[in-house]
Amino acid sequence: MKIKYRIQKEDIDSNSRYGIIETPRGSFETPMFMPVGTQATIKSMTPEMAKECGGAIILSNTYHLWERPGEDVIFDAGGLHEFMNYDGPILTDSGGFQVFSLANPKDINEEGVYFKSNIDGKKLFLSPEKSIEIQNKLGADIIMSFDECPPYPSTYEYMKESVERTLRWAKRGKDVHNNDKQSLFGIVQGGEFEDLRKHSALETVKLDFDGYSIGGTSVGEGKDVMYKMVDYAINYLPKDKPRYLMGVGDPIDILEAVSRGVDMFDCVLPTRIARHGNAFTRSGKINLKNAKFKYDHTPLEDNCDCYTCKHYKKSYIRHLIISKETLGGTLLSIHNIRFLIKLTEDIRMKIKENNFLEFKEEFIKKYNN
Amino acid sequence: MKIKYRIQKEDIDSNSRYGIIETPRGSFETPMFMPVGTQATIKSMTPEMAKECGGAIILSNTYHLWERPGEDVIFDAGGLHEFMNYDGPILTDSGGFQVFSLANPKDINEEGVYFKSNIDGKKLFLSPEKSIEIQNKLGADIIMSFDECPPYPSTYEYMKESVERTLRWAKRGKDVHNNDKQSLFGIVQGGEFEDLRKHSALETVKLDFDGYSIGGTSVGEGKDVMYKMVDYAINYLPKDKPRYLMGVGDPIDILEAVSRGVDMFDCVLPTRIARHGNAFTRSGKINLKNAKFKYDHTPLEDNCDCYTCKHYKKSYIRHLIISKETLGGTLLSIHNIRFLIKLTEDIRMKIKENNFLEFKEEFIKKYNN
Repeated sequence: MKIKYRIQKEDIDSNSRYGIIETPRGSFETPMFMPVGTQATIKSMTPEMAKECGGAIILSNTYHLWERPGEDVIFDAGGLHEFMNYDGPILTDSGGFQVFSLANPKDINEEGVYFKSNIDGKKLFLSPEKSIEIQNKLGADIIMSFDECPPYPSTYEYMKESVERTLRWAKRGKDVHNNDKQSLFGIVQGGEFEDLRKHSALETVKLDFDGYSIGGTSVGEGKDVMYKMVDYAINYLPKDKPRYLMGVGDPIDILEAVSRGVDMFDCVLPTRIARHGNAFTRSGKINLKNAKFKYDHTPLEDNCDCYTCKHYKKSYIRHLIISKETLGGTLLSIHNIRFLIKLTEDIRMKIKENNFLEFKEEFIKKYNN
Repeated sequence: MKIKYRIQKEDIDSNSRYGIIETPRGSFETPMFMPVGTQATIKSMTPEMAKECGGAIILSNTYHLWERPGEDVIFDAGGLHEFMNYDGPILTDSGGFQVFSLANPKDINEEGVYFKSNIDGKKLFLSPEKSIEIQNKLGADIIMSFDECPPYPSTYEYMKESVERTLRWAKRGKDVHNNDKQSLFGIVQGGEFEDLRKHSALETVKLDFDGYSIGGTSVGEGKDVMYKMVDYAINYLPKDKPRYLMGVGDPIDILEAVSRGVDMFDCVLPTRIARHGNAFTRSGKINLKNAKFKYDHTPLEDNCDCYTCKHYKKSYIRHLIISKETLGGTLLSIHNIRFLIKLTEDIRMKIKENNFLEFKEEFIKKYNN
């Protein structure tokens, strides 16, 4: 089956919406944050830990799995779910984002992209057809079109050409994707240019995908520009399909994007900052390396319901981080992922209660205190 | 309460014995392997994972915790159990083993040992009294006397002098240890010299400890010498007290030592080899980096009841290890710790069944195949 998105409640004061997405591996509510398992593992966590965080859908990266262990190994193992012991819904990206950070512009042509391997420098080639073929073998429940993700800033002329190419690539990918088990999303590009975002959105929607991603963000464009990228595209996306803002996971960005009508988010932020000793709290980020936590035997955050806060003290987590013990990163990752998923739970509740904008304002005020 | 050791069954063909040790935090059966949590964490594992492996008692290192975070932090947190979220029995070593690998012989005197910090090169001093004071603050259920652990080989003359000093240190430590919650073990030294091991055992027993460790092993002496070190001491240790062979965790060494009458073992081996991609199996160690496992979608070992073998395939663990994902080390650590604890479970069953020596022979034959 393809995924089904059903709006449960639209906010009266903003574009935010509370919905449910049905997938072949269970339903999840939106807005939702998806933890990232780049190499078929959410770094330093077991799948059970991710589920205990309320994680309903996770993301894995096509480029990384294509390079290592190779999509054939995963296909032979029975697919990505079986390979990594995760029976909930999985989404894979197209590889585009990673490829374009490794490629020179001159290596991009109509056919696809030539670039050098991140691992051994070997010359590789990825195309819309190849990306779909790999994603078909991986077997995620939601897969992405192969798009060009230009750097920020790019010229208007380049971006215009790129948007057209991405549209042609989207069609080519859709043409070769022929199974009913995996839903395919189209990706809106167009940089910070209003007319290009509109054009990209309208033309991508014409191709009729199962959902729509807003891409080309998280490439160094700054928050205000990123919010505009969402604004310029979102009103041209159909209400009855999910909208996914790729690579975004800062708490304030999630709130801003939800208020604009976004349903799905992913980001490596919660696990990456964890490995450096940082924890999200409602009063902003804290770094456990700070000496003031040496004798602080309280949890990372009062009233947090995560495994870490139920069992461990700041003093202990600080000790683990300073001693470079991986359990420190594990405990902080659990807390940070739970923090973002709990944020989306609260958002959903507030939308239901017609109280989202007030919640958003209060959250941001306290977080930026 | 002090610990109580009760023999349940003595083997008729060997010195091996099946027993139960009662501690203030629950009982456990012996022979038993204790996983090592050097820095108040079993590397890359949660305490729940250790318990799921059948782990009944864990070891932590006084030297490391004294240096970082400092015993006062842990005392202030409510003690080591509370600090690290582990409510089962814990054993701490005395720091002696670590200190002597950092000290020059000239820095050892009657009072104690001067040595340089492993972390910042700072000059530090540890004595029998200081070691007990730190261990009292950490609050483990079983603690160790501060002993000198000379390198292998050492001259007879040096070892004789060292054994006498360790005996004086054992008495000094016992004199300052004055609580009923923590049981104190004496440590037998004497290198590979039969008369010195006998003398050390007899004189240590006269001081009347709650249990006895055999120390000075795992310092590069080779298996045959190590077994002799056990042979030379064990018959002079009382039957009604537990016997602990420090730093030993190779499966064959465990079997050999059990047959000589040892009850407790600890070693970093299962977690250390895990981080390098190795797994224990009944047919010997395997390394997951080996290309032959790329498409091997079977568990590490058939019929293994550990979490890893129940849920993951070799192909996936290989991918994690090659991708340097910490979950790979976690999954292998779980399997390896379970392997050693299961080995002690099997040993206990075989002692009960009067079948230990046959089991030992078969195990070694298959393991060395």
